[in-house]
Amino acid sequence: MKINELRLILKKRNADAALFYNSDSSRTNPNMLYFSGYGGLGALVIPKKQPPFLIAPEMEFERAKKSMVKKVYSMEKKKFFESIYKIARKNRLKIKNIAIDKSSFTLNSYRHFRKQFKNIKSKDIALDCLKLRETKTEKEIRILEKSCAYADKILQKAIKNFRHFKTESQAAAFLEYEAKKLGLELSFNPIVASGSNASMPHHEPSNSKIKKGFCVIDFGVKYKGYCSDITRTIYVGKPSEKEKDTYNMLLKIQENAINQIKENKKCSELYDFVVKSLGKYKDYFTHGLGHGVGVEIHEMPNLTLNSKDRIKNSMVFTIEPGIYFPKRFGIRIEDTILFKNKPIVLTKTSKDLLIV
Amino acid sequence: MKINELRLILKKRNADAALFYNSDSSRTNPNMLYFSGYGGLGALVIPKKQPPFLIAPEMEFERAKKSMVKKVYSMEKKKFFESIYKIARKNRLKIKNIAIDKSSFTLNSYRHFRKQFKNIKSKDIALDCLKLRETKTEKEIRILEKSCAYADKILQKAIKNFRHFKTESQAAAFLEYEAKKLGLELSFNPIVASGSNASMPHHEPSNSKIKKGFCVIDFGVKYKGYCSDITRTIYVGKPSEKEKDTYNMLLKIQENAINQIKENKKCSELYDFVVKSLGKYKDYFTHGLGHGVGVEIHEMPNLTLNSKDRIKNSMVFTIEPGIYFPKRFGIRIEDTILFKNKPIVLTKTSKDLLIV
Repeated sequence: MKINELRLILKKRNADAALFYNSDSSRTNPNMLYFSGYGGLGALVIPKKQPPFLIAPEMEFERAKKSMVKKVYSMEKKKFFESIYKIARKNRLKIKNIAIDKSSFTLNSYRHFRKQFKNIKSKDIALDCLKLRETKTEKEIRILEKSCAYADKILQKAIKNFRHFKTESQAAAFLEYEAKKLGLELSFNPIVASGSNASMPHHEPSNSKIKKGFCVIDFGVKYKGYCSDITRTIYVGKPSEKEKDTYNMLLKIQENAINQIKENKKCSELYDFVVKSLGKYKDYFTHGLGHGVGVEIHEMPNLTLNSKDRIKNSMVFTIEPGIYFPKRFGIRIEDTILFKNKPIVLTKTSKDLLIV
Repeated sequence: MKINELRLILKKRNADAALFYNSDSSRTNPNMLYFSGYGGLGALVIPKKQPPFLIAPEMEFERAKKSMVKKVYSMEKKKFFESIYKIARKNRLKIKNIAIDKSSFTLNSYRHFRKQFKNIKSKDIALDCLKLRETKTEKEIRILEKSCAYADKILQKAIKNFRHFKTESQAAAFLEYEAKKLGLELSFNPIVASGSNASMPHHEPSNSKIKKGFCVIDFGVKYKGYCSDITRTIYVGKPSEKEKDTYNMLLKIQENAINQIKENKKCSELYDFVVKSLGKYKDYFTHGLGHGVGVEIHEMPNLTLNSKDRIKNSMVFTIEPGIYFPKRFGIRIEDTILFKNKPIVLTKTSKDLLIV
């Protein structure tokens, strides 16, 4: 995506090419994935003027060839930056200034890189890439819509089956199993937090029995590399009137926050709006209001207290207020939102308090 | 683990402290996990003389407090290295030389780090840490034994149910589901490769039907952060005598290789032994013989052609010869082995050719 926009950045920064790499088979490089459709082991070079090319080890060659990049070269075993250098030379690519993502480039990789590419200046484009990825293309929006639709479908199936789960881990395993059966990866390890566990926003599902009370389920899948993110809080057992009121108060605030979203609105103002709406509960809201969603589960914009970001057309991000009463209970309600002249909620699972 | 051994390294390298950090919530820092029991968001500082301390964001505070490190401090939001600096000062820690893992430290983190910690020299201890983790403590061995027992249990259940799986993805999803139900993470995405797919050592499970012939299943779980790794090759349908002979030849070589393991033996000699034993099949063995297993699925020692590593007491590693006939079939047999005066096979699933 947006190769031409990246080239404008290269021009502005006086760089001859951009280089992204991934040397860890258990990870994906989000910028490589974004610009090429391939984020596995290897490297992506995007010259300012020539066509981009990928370099991948033999084991990954077939996968790399299925990407958006036409030129794919084979990488010599254990000779990571040496291969890149040789292929760059073969392509008659002269690099004096190179643009790299210094937020993922490690000190040791940089040392190996510099051994090959001597007397080169490096320019950091980590933030440029994040900014570029902040607003989505039409193609990305269609993929994100689908990713959210899958998350909805699987979450609803899990809620329907919820009374069969004995432990939080079982519920989390079910969510993952249903995603994998459809050939989808997860955006992150699902959170299933019942009873007092729900008072920890990032609680890891445990083997302990599902407790009575509020149960927070936070889940998302990756479809064609793009994440979705949704949280619903259900109730196990019979909620008191006070508990229902607390839930509905938070739901109202979440919906009002979504309605506050306007072009050019400061993200920090949306955060402020929620804090003010929470009144006496504001100290129990212990995390940000939301984050951008794309090839990474957390991207720009940041919807936090000190954020400088503003809402723009074609942004996709979450709105997820929560309240957490230590050692007692927690509630969080989260949707993935597309802003396209108006806020459009992409995750469509009902937000009425569901009692199981 | 092995904090005292790390301190000896700090002394040798004339470093005042070691610093490990993790700024990505979707990852675990293996060295942080190894030395503290906590590998999530935050930082671990191990001074040469004072007690180690962890710094974690509020959200992760409870998890960090469950670690082996007694001192846990709260990190200010978005002030990663600033928090570390403040807490280091509070602890009257003077740092002139700092030991870091340059294979995971990124260029941007280093810049932020240097803004706080001025005029500091950094020493790379990436390799020292790998070497330190190469031999396991008694406590680690007990955890690894348990991790392997879980992998055995789940793999056997999958093999028992194998005839119900229609696609490779279904079999892989089953393995994952059973692990997650027990509250276990995976060591890596399971490999289920049937028919001609088995001729690719790292084939990703596909939605295509399970084919007749050899089917390679490579699987492992993480128990308390420690990995297990086992591969069994089963047969779908009815094998010919020649196929049985090929399987049994590889099995014999795998068992002989295990029996060759002795204290101080060169890992490259074990690799050579397998290559020689394979005779005319040697060109079809296209990967290393094995790798160390611990908090990471691939650690030292390396059992490869050019490895300089030698077998030491309390090492845990895999022995996994395989033969792959392009576009036809593949067989791999892998165990996780503990060397404790003699080789002890930790993965105990039967290696007789199983026909389903």
